[in-house]
Amino acid sequence: MKEEKKENIEEFYNLNDLTQGLKRELAPGLNTRIFIGDNLMLSVVKIDPNCKGEVHSHAEEQWGVLLEGDGIREQDGVEFAVTAGDFWMTPGGIPHNFAAGPDGAKVLDIFSPPRAVYKAKGAGFSAD
Amino acid sequence: MKEEKKENIEEFYNLNDLTQGLKRELAPGLNTRIFIGDNLMLSVVKIDPNCKGEVHSHAEEQWGVLLEGDGIREQDGVEFAVTAGDFWMTPGGIPHNFAAGPDGAKVLDIFSPPRAVYKAKGAGFSAD
Repeated sequence: MKEEKKENIEEFYNLNDLTQGLKRELAPGLNTRIFIGDNLMLSVVKIDPNCKGEVHSHAEEQWGVLLEGDGIREQDGVEFAVTAGDFWMTPGGIPHNFAAGPDGAKVLDIFSPPRAVYKAKGAGFSAD
Repeated sequence: MKEEKKENIEEFYNLNDLTQGLKRELAPGLNTRIFIGDNLMLSVVKIDPNCKGEVHSHAEEQWGVLLEGDGIREQDGVEFAVTAGDFWMTPGGIPHNFAAGPDGAKVLDIFSPPRAVYKAKGAGFSAD
């Protein structure tokens, strides 16, 4: 068994390496990098200070992990104040949104099944 | 629209709240808390300093995110040194393991489909 540099392997990534992933602007000030598996899709979203998306929904189940910063998670019409370390489940079809606080935020979104529209270049949330 | 305390809502959790999730000892020094969705399962694994699991595999696709600490990720017989912020994909059926460094580690494992054996109380990796 040998130790190899992980940079050579497609299955290893870093949350902070901006060269990795399929880039997508979800909304002004919300930029993500998307990583695609067979059953799972990860989206590392950087949200600029005081920026927010648009309420949208889609059929795919989604979980979000707030890695850095804080903000307001809106889910099914209710707002939740969240801070780093909080995570949440968003069942398919539930309208949701995220608004970053004054320091911005980084959110790891996880989808299953992978969102087909996010496998190709594009912009926006592409809601159902 | 009103703001509610997220503590009242089952869909909101925190990575560091040890009261949440279904607890499971994977191996000595490897303890996890499991969160179950329809298509996704999250497992927040705390690995004590210098502890490691056993090489195992399962049919479900898995992604891992190293939230804290560092260690060695073994995947398909190859070892990769990983540090906080690294994440990786483990396709179904690939033998894998994790060994924490001297400061321990916290790993967010994500499975799809959810691992059926992890929905019930138990211990161990329950490899295929």
